[in-house]
Amino acid sequence: MPTDIEIARAAKLEPILKIAEKIGIPADALEPYGTKIAKVDLDFLARAQESAKSRPKSKLILVTAINPTAAGEGKTTTSVGLADALRVIGKKSVVALREPSLGPCFGMKGGAAGGGYAQVVPMEAINLHFTGDFHAISAAHNLLAAMIDNHIYWGNAPAIDSRRVALRRVVDMNDRALRQIVVSLGGVANGYPRENGFDITVASEVMAIFCLARNLQDLQERLGKIVIAYGPDKKPITAEDLKAAGAMTVLLKDALMPNLVQTLEGTPAFIHGGPFANIAHGCNSVIATTAGLALSDYTVTEAGFGADLGAEKFLDIKCRKAGLAPSAAVIVATLRALKAQGGVAKADLGKENHAAVKAGLANLGRHVSNVRKFGLPVVVAINHFGGDNESELEIIAKTSRDEFGAEAIVCKHWAEGGKGAAKLAEKVVELAESGKANFHVLYPDELSLTEKMRKIAQEIYGAKDISIEPAAKKQIADIEALGFGHLPVCVAKTQYSFSTDPTKLGAPTDFTVPVREVRLSAGAGFVVMITGEIMTMPGLPKVPAAVNIKLDDKGQIEGLF
Amino acid sequence: MPTDIEIARAAKLEPILKIAEKIGIPADALEPYGTKIAKVDLDFLARAQESAKSRPKSKLILVTAINPTAAGEGKTTTSVGLADALRVIGKKSVVALREPSLGPCFGMKGGAAGGGYAQVVPMEAINLHFTGDFHAISAAHNLLAAMIDNHIYWGNAPAIDSRRVALRRVVDMNDRALRQIVVSLGGVANGYPRENGFDITVASEVMAIFCLARNLQDLQERLGKIVIAYGPDKKPITAEDLKAAGAMTVLLKDALMPNLVQTLEGTPAFIHGGPFANIAHGCNSVIATTAGLALSDYTVTEAGFGADLGAEKFLDIKCRKAGLAPSAAVIVATLRALKAQGGVAKADLGKENHAAVKAGLANLGRHVSNVRKFGLPVVVAINHFGGDNESELEIIAKTSRDEFGAEAIVCKHWAEGGKGAAKLAEKVVELAESGKANFHVLYPDELSLTEKMRKIAQEIYGAKDISIEPAAKKQIADIEALGFGHLPVCVAKTQYSFSTDPTKLGAPTDFTVPVREVRLSAGAGFVVMITGEIMTMPGLPKVPAAVNIKLDDKGQIEGLF
Repeated sequence: MPTDIEIARAAKLEPILKIAEKIGIPADALEPYGTKIAKVDLDFLARAQESAKSRPKSKLILVTAINPTAAGEGKTTTSVGLADALRVIGKKSVVALREPSLGPCFGMKGGAAGGGYAQVVPMEAINLHFTGDFHAISAAHNLLAAMIDNHIYWGNAPAIDSRRVALRRVVDMNDRALRQIVVSLGGVANGYPRENGFDITVASEVMAIFCLARNLQDLQERLGKIVIAYGPDKKPITAEDLKAAGAMTVLLKDALMPNLVQTLEGTPAFIHGGPFANIAHGCNSVIATTAGLALSDYTVTEAGFGADLGAEKFLDIKCRKAGLAPSAAVIVATLRALKAQGGVAKADLGKENHAAVKAGLANLGRHVSNVRKFGLPVVVAINHFGGDNESELEIIAKTSRDEFGAEAIVCKHWAEGGKGAAKLAEKVVELAESGKANFHVLYPDELSLTEKMRKIAQEIYGAKDISIEPAAKKQIADIEALGFGHLPVCVAKTQYSFSTDPTKLGAPTDFTVPVREVRLSAGAGFVVMITGEIMTMPGLPKVPAAVNIKLDDKGQIEGLF
Repeated sequence: MPTDIEIARAAKLEPILKIAEKIGIPADALEPYGTKIAKVDLDFLARAQESAKSRPKSKLILVTAINPTAAGEGKTTTSVGLADALRVIGKKSVVALREPSLGPCFGMKGGAAGGGYAQVVPMEAINLHFTGDFHAISAAHNLLAAMIDNHIYWGNAPAIDSRRVALRRVVDMNDRALRQIVVSLGGVANGYPRENGFDITVASEVMAIFCLARNLQDLQERLGKIVIAYGPDKKPITAEDLKAAGAMTVLLKDALMPNLVQTLEGTPAFIHGGPFANIAHGCNSVIATTAGLALSDYTVTEAGFGADLGAEKFLDIKCRKAGLAPSAAVIVATLRALKAQGGVAKADLGKENHAAVKAGLANLGRHVSNVRKFGLPVVVAINHFGGDNESELEIIAKTSRDEFGAEAIVCKHWAEGGKGAAKLAEKVVELAESGKANFHVLYPDELSLTEKMRKIAQEIYGAKDISIEPAAKKQIADIEALGFGHLPVCVAKTQYSFSTDPTKLGAPTDFTVPVREVRLSAGAGFVVMITGEIMTMPGLPKVPAAVNIKLDDKGQIEGLF
């Protein structure tokens, strides 16, 4: 089998105008970036949404997964494969995915545009600068940061307590040296020295806002609500207090148009936005998802990490805020990943081990039952790897059917493209059209922040209870006193376990979820509950992937994937 | 008269395909960014350059200026007006300009795309993210910076002395708080604390390299030569010692294609690259200039600041390295700026003052004589402002003709577009076709760095001599010992005076030029001689322009210009 990049390069791409035509986007609603990528006009999309209201409701399909392991699950690959498969069986589908971050490309080897015969293309462009959205987000964020220190420097009103600046700076690069820094050194002309630091761009609240905004007006309002610092009276100071939201919106106005590309099989793909799944909600933009719904019959989308984090946030934050109601959910697993969840070390994943498969299935089972708590019908997609053991696959199918009541379908989109996932697509259509979906969020807005967190921990993670550290209790009280108690909760937790201990695999019980810190994202509209160390600025490994990346003699990129 | 932005918005732009056609670029050699901007394929340009060799040589026209004053001269405006005027009189022209930097747009009000009826469009896009070139340059630079600290963190070979890291980081924003910082705080996981800082992106050596590279291969080689740090043995360590140049080139491969846009009159305009004119050479990219020459009969280009800095560097650095030979130079002045050079305060510039005009003309006279030292014929362009006094304009014309032997032509392109500069265009054609140009650089490569600096100071600035501080002497000795003594010198000096004292207007004499610091830009291929404080990271004013920038009800940008 050729490598991902060989497959991507060998592909005959259709002109983006043709891809747009498939979902009724006229040429004059496109801003082309070359001939294979285009942004779609927001006014056109607003009109399309309006006219879609008079048609049968389009179906939104969530692709989520078991807790990730080093073995890999292939959520993006399966999302692409499912969208292609829906076209294979005659449905008008699109896929809506997150944009990859630039930094990690140069750290560990690996892009984020699917794999095998289930990829979005042009993959090199998508994995590098793409249409510049993340650069625009970095610029908007850093303009705000510069305006804060400038405001302090000139002593402008309202006064900012320089010890209480909440906004950090961002760069789309893995750069551990910038995690914690002291700025404004060097004397009077450079301001007041204070501690600061950089996050990777995907961790920016501007990114989260970008992905939750419905339109430019909403974007500007949300940007204005970012709490950037506190005054000497400890009252919050917002971006709008510094009159920064307008200029930030101007920097983001082109970026907010969703990016249209295609899968290897010519299925239209919206790739737009990409917030971190720990400190933010981890889904592509609301604008892209709603564009998909307005222009197709099936929109397949994914959420970051496992379903405990990704699906929960997708449903409780994104769907709640955007008024979306999914029709079905797909939970992706691989045989190898289930065995890893069953405690098998990476080197031994190839060995037949029925007990480990059964143990690992506990993880899948809890996710199936969790997703149903939101009123969604579920199907399991087993993303097939060459060499998977048939009798082990049979255990998955049987357990899933008999114990979880969910069909587990082996999918071969990686090796075969859309036709390899046709059975999955048929099942998805059956579930989506069954009328069984009765989507509802897990908790109402009115619940207190603490009770929201407890409900997520108990009903989704399977925890006994939560324990909130004193500092976090104070933060919750402050946030509720400021009038933000109605916001949903965005949990920052390890993705490797239902619990906060990444080594507890399967379906752990009898654990407590400690809340160590609580942060307000007033612009994005959620409250982040931090349950452990969260990394908002990755580092590079000893030998970064960058050292092997270069142009070859033909000017083609070598070493990127 | 409508404002710049009103004029720009009212303009009927031609599709970029039509603009490209005017200079023989086929559609398949374009990468469109929307319908009004395109990048041009580098392979196509290489072929066009090859085939241009068999045609009569295309003319390169340098637009430079007197020393800038608060009154403004309009170098970009005149470059655009001249290119339009050349088309008015039947010549196939293009204009090649620098890309504006994002940061300053949000600081002091003002874009950088010409003015009045002599503008390049679409001006909002050009002044904001444009095609993302500067973002790509920032990313390439910051990848290298991250790889340096990562190299130190992991103790990779060759060892870097963390006190002797030469490369700073960059951001395309005015942010004084980042001028001087301490990085890698916070403990073992974040590396070894050290002093560092951010420059604005245009000050990056990557930007200078980008603008001097002839092709991707040359770009990669030059990036590899950047001296990023020194080892414990004080030997230089380069980007290639860290194997960073390949990945940096991959990040820059699309950016290196020059950007094609148009003037208000539909003249093709290449806008590409924009290095600082202090710490770098201040001209647009070699690739864009050579593209213009290959595809047109007249390429009009500009150089940053006054002719003492801009023209000298354009000729001694860019033309020397790229093998370019200009056919004529235009020196831009305004009546108001000449009066300012004659010592008149801004508030009094409107008052008739013949003595001040005559005093200010000394500045113009020295620039005229300087440019001739490079073997170029010169014409003076007086960029006309409404309300200019006719008798004062007459003094300029007479003095220029009688004392400097150069025609001074009043140009009204700002108010009238190309036809307002038709006389200037005719004179430029006359000079360029006269065969009078006999271009040569000011000094040979073999001259020592000190003697190069002395020659520039004495012959161009009019200084008595230079004085090199002891630390700078040591730096020169080190650089020559490393084998870089053959490089040209890039002087960082105030742009407001021939001398290093910005208050010495006109044509000062009897001064010495102190050299305080010397920096090697081994990748760009020049040695920077710093003669005073140079600012590589601007700050924002008390009320930044950003606070007035927003989208209006129609989604149009308000307050940007």
